[in-house]
Amino acid sequence: MISIILGSKSDIDVYKTIAATLERLEVPFKKRIMSAHRTPEALKTYIEHSSARVFIAVAGLSAALPGIIASMTIKPVIGVPVRAESSILGLDSVLSILQMPRGTPVATVGLSNGVNAALLAAEILAIENGRLSATLRDFRKAQKEKVLLDNTKFQKLK
Amino acid sequence: MISIILGSKSDIDVYKTIAATLERLEVPFKKRIMSAHRTPEALKTYIEHSSARVFIAVAGLSAALPGIIASMTIKPVIGVPVRAESSILGLDSVLSILQMPRGTPVATVGLSNGVNAALLAAEILAIENGRLSATLRDFRKAQKEKVLLDNTKFQKLK
Amino acid sequence: MISIILGSKSDIDVYKTIAATLERLEVPFKKRIMSAHRTPEALKTYIEHSSARVFIAVAGLSAALPGIIASMTIKPVIGVPVRAESSILGLDSVLSILQMPRGTPVATVGLSNGVNAALLAAEILAIENGRLSATLRDFRKAQKEKVLLDNTKFQKLK
Amino acid sequence: MISIILGSKSDIDVYKTIAATLERLEVPFKKRIMSAHRTPEALKTYIEHSSARVFIAVAGLSAALPGIIASMTIKPVIGVPVRAESSILGLDSVLSILQMPRGTPVATVGLSNGVNAALLAAEILAIENGRLSATLRDFRKAQKEKVLLDNTKFQKLK
Amino acid sequence: MISIILGSKSDIDVYKTIAATLERLEVPFKKRIMSAHRTPEALKTYIEHSSARVFIAVAGLSAALPGIIASMTIKPVIGVPVRAESSILGLDSVLSILQMPRGTPVATVGLSNGVNAALLAAEILAIENGRLSATLRDFRKAQKEKVLLDNTKFQKLK
Amino acid sequence: MISIILGSKSDIDVYKTIAATLERLEVPFKKRIMSAHRTPEALKTYIEHSSARVFIAVAGLSAALPGIIASMTIKPVIGVPVRAESSILGLDSVLSILQMPRGTPVATVGLSNGVNAALLAAEILAIENGRLSATLRDFRKAQKEKVLLDNTKFQKLK
Amino acid sequence: MISIILGSKSDIDVYKTIAATLERLEVPFKKRIMSAHRTPEALKTYIEHSSARVFIAVAGLSAALPGIIASMTIKPVIGVPVRAESSILGLDSVLSILQMPRGTPVATVGLSNGVNAALLAAEILAIENGRLSATLRDFRKAQKEKVLLDNTKFQKLK
Amino acid sequence: MISIILGSKSDIDVYKTIAATLERLEVPFKKRIMSAHRTPEALKTYIEHSSARVFIAVAGLSAALPGIIASMTIKPVIGVPVRAESSILGLDSVLSILQMPRGTPVATVGLSNGVNAALLAAEILAIENGRLSATLRDFRKAQKEKVLLDNTKFQKLK
Repeated sequence: MISIILGSKSDIDVYKTIAATLERLEVPFKKRIMSAHRTPEALKTYIEHSSARVFIAVAGLSAALPGIIASMTIKPVIGVPVRAESSILGLDSVLSILQMPRGTPVATVGLSNGVNAALLAAEILAIENGRLSATLRDFRKAQKEKVLLDNTKFQKLK
Repeated sequence: MISIILGSKSDIDVYKTIAATLERLEVPFKKRIMSAHRTPEALKTYIEHSSARVFIAVAGLSAALPGIIASMTIKPVIGVPVRAESSILGLDSVLSILQMPRGTPVATVGLSNGVNAALLAAEILAIENGRLSATLRDFRKAQKEKVLLDNTKFQKLK
Repeated sequence: MISIILGSKSDIDVYKTIAATLERLEVPFKKRIMSAHRTPEALKTYIEHSSARVFIAVAGLSAALPGIIASMTIKPVIGVPVRAESSILGLDSVLSILQMPRGTPVATVGLSNGVNAALLAAEILAIENGRLSATLRDFRKAQKEKVLLDNTKFQKLK
Repeated sequence: MISIILGSKSDIDVYKTIAATLERLEVPFKKRIMSAHRTPEALKTYIEHSSARVFIAVAGLSAALPGIIASMTIKPVIGVPVRAESSILGLDSVLSILQMPRGTPVATVGLSNGVNAALLAAEILAIENGRLSATLRDFRKAQKEKVLLDNTKFQKLK
Repeated sequence: MISIILGSKSDIDVYKTIAATLERLEVPFKKRIMSAHRTPEALKTYIEHSSARVFIAVAGLSAALPGIIASMTIKPVIGVPVRAESSILGLDSVLSILQMPRGTPVATVGLSNGVNAALLAAEILAIENGRLSATLRDFRKAQKEKVLLDNTKFQKLK
Repeated sequence: MISIILGSKSDIDVYKTIAATLERLEVPFKKRIMSAHRTPEALKTYIEHSSARVFIAVAGLSAALPGIIASMTIKPVIGVPVRAESSILGLDSVLSILQMPRGTPVATVGLSNGVNAALLAAEILAIENGRLSATLRDFRKAQKEKVLLDNTKFQKLK
Repeated sequence: MISIILGSKSDIDVYKTIAATLERLEVPFKKRIMSAHRTPEALKTYIEHSSARVFIAVAGLSAALPGIIASMTIKPVIGVPVRAESSILGLDSVLSILQMPRGTPVATVGLSNGVNAALLAAEILAIENGRLSATLRDFRKAQKEKVLLDNTKFQKLK
Repeated sequence: MISIILGSKSDIDVYKTIAATLERLEVPFKKRIMSAHRTPEALKTYIEHSSARVFIAVAGLSAALPGIIASMTIKPVIGVPVRAESSILGLDSVLSILQMPRGTPVATVGLSNGVNAALLAAEILAIENGRLSATLRDFRKAQKEKVLLDNTKFQKLK
């Protein structure tokens, strides 16, 4: 099971991409909005009692959430930077999540890249799950076929 | 009283500048090394029981420390970004400390600018402290005289 | 009392956020539009005679205003960078306000982050003001409850 | 088992950090130098036949290696950006590894952060490995004690 | 003959500029959508059997495509960076294509600059093609006349 | 006559380049160290009574000096950004000087480019000074001859 | 007399700001569209025969125009960077114009800052023109009064 | 034949890499130091009379040279950005060369990447030169064997 944690309700669009990808892969997940700065105790209680195997944390600006979750668990934590209002290009969020000090790792994916966060979480679970591995291989095959189809249509253009 | 908190012992050079400035201004201070990611409980206990009126937090990379302290207290928190090894220009630290989400303020000073962190803390205390106000005015006067003297020497150059 | 100084009337949106936050915290404030480059004498007269305990200065582009105010007073000065037209991402304003030379501190908050400027000013006043401390604690509690409520709604989503 | 793949022999310093951390955690690993651009067939053969559960790929400049490995396997791939000679701050490597297109995830860690790459790989393996979980918890405890000790020494300074 | 390869169907606008420019220069071309990450085998087969003399590869984000094509051929490869959704200013794509490691060259043109990609490809073919050289000279002359005409109109303005 | 104003004595290396270039052009100049933040009154008195026709202001970090001088005079002000200690690449200084608000112009030259600051000042004076025009033309000719000589030596290399 | 040279007709909006400011200051000017890359001979002929005392050059992207004009004359050249389509934030234009090699100065103003380009040109002419000096002083006074009026209105707000 | 043109004698280190690579590929070349700003006439005469099939232009800062050469010829021009003294990370040179306006293409390679400039030039010549194609294939094979050898040694490490 995966746990998706948003730092703010403004991150719901990225959540929807993560959720849609996990549903397509038939990976069960739970979801929360929790804040490293506003609800640290609730966050701590949740992380320590969660049966999730992987956490996905979404946050913008000075995005402390993924790193703080990573400090509360030895489960893998995937961080998804997002471009909030008044962000400086999203670079604030990217660097806050990526440049963690030695000792507390966060697996960072690209800006607003909920699809890759979900796939990475699924790949981690699939190490010990043959059925999920097969689903992931099918997903890759479908991606490949999508490109081949796009190519066929494109070659016929004009 | 001011409390200076370093995120890591590698920040000691900036500490020394802060300490020297506060000593010159005769402002008492305490000092700690504490980590938002490694020793969060000790940090929380310390912040909640500290009698400091202002906190100065020094941190590099994904510098969560100033913001996490700010979430634990309603005392003013001054953040000092530093350029750690493997930093991306110090921009990671600057943006992590500066771009705090709405609701949890951090008073950010320039990169490695321990002098200004100390002065800002002293200015805050001086609002209700006439003697410290006088000391700060003297400091300013000394700065001004230093520039005037540099100018006099410079005009005589060559 | 807080004094809010805008470098230009184009900064009024950020002003409104600062004012709304201070009003909610019941902190009295005054407001001015004054320019470091166009009305330096009026600015100097105002700063030197103001009974404000903290200044909040809002400015874009080559944002000299917060630093120039800081050079005219030993009161704490909070700088709010904004993204003006023809700004380079707001980085010009952020770096102009943040990277002050040693000796003249400005407490910088995030880009257009009027909420945090107001909260920081209130935190400074609250050091010697028990009633304002209580108001700030209530504000924090309301923020926390807002996140918990967002979370409850979010968990019910779909 | 973990497989560490360097894009070039100039990345050996980061390799040593990864290896030392994995050895401390008693996680077995293999190592290779392979290039997405120079030895793509050897890379493909290696990835497809490797019994590694997690790959760690280290690369600088236009760092295609982690993404290309990620396209060859559904195992988790951890990317470590490094600052090569003639790099533009390491931003080239960071953005090349981080900003993967949707569908091919790479778990990016901070610039030259071999320690976190090793820890993240271990966290992934530890999901199904109680002994490794215990080792990771001990590692965290040691980190915490290191900070507490640094703090004790620091408080005695001068 | 030129071969234009898009990394994704979202790059069709840039394709249209390249195609229009090549048509105007009467340079024949073929077109494909192919992905370094999703259809590497099809890409390899296509590149190795293509009779194209020059390849133009268009890609966004972690734009591995131009470099991977360059590793599969000793024909000149022109890379066109584009600004995809969730791109960081297009800098991710620019640096991924530009900062190739020593040994595998990509001729990079400016962001979304399909016109220059087409012209560069034509200039390469024109080295051994007098008729195409003449067409390129005519194109330059037309550009020059366009500026002279713009100038004439501009001088009459108001 | 030209007036060169440094924001700090740490800018003396750039001063020396400016001075050497002006001496070579036989343009008389005066020199000062003055600070927009520390000695604003002395600066104002100096600028208002100076008989200089052009000002050259050198400053690092949040480089308010050139803009503040520009607000005190309608004489042309040339700004020279420099890379001070703890600077963020010099971008702080460049953007602080370059991105002046509408109404108060500063003629910015490149980072630490004292030669161009001196030449620009001389070009301004030369508009009404035939002898200086001739000197500038000789300087250009010498530059050209230097490149031609470098080329001759280079062609003989190895 | 001032000569305004645009690198492309897409720069007409900035031209209009320059023209309106010069007209308000009653400074006569001529205007041209000329390209460093497309019409270098026409540009050279124009610059060498122009009776302009100052040139203002507007250009985007790899903005070679101001520097090339500066190499053709010893008159002062003011460069105005603009943010063209497919520009990287305008940083390409800013750095291309600002970072001129030693020996060929360009007086750079802020991004799209036509007002300051015009004012700087007028300040240069005003050195030897008392009437223009008076006009510039009036312009400054009007600016100041505008801010004072904005302030009066602002203080009455709500 | 290839012509290598340096903007300044300070670019000789990059020249040596280009020359060494071309010599290894047995591609004849000529060399010049010429400046777009200081020796434009000599540059124009040289480019128009050169029998070179491809030009390689090396330049730093506001690197106008490659684009100006590209405007003088319809031969392919390869631009090599370099990091000069007082450069802003080399970004000034990279963006000046890369972001050419539509109509005048420059084939840009990575920062200081003389090897790739030489290889790209050779690839262009090899289109019509079977012997050079074979040499390039051998070069690629040697690169591949180098990596395989590095890998063999690396696997034996410790």
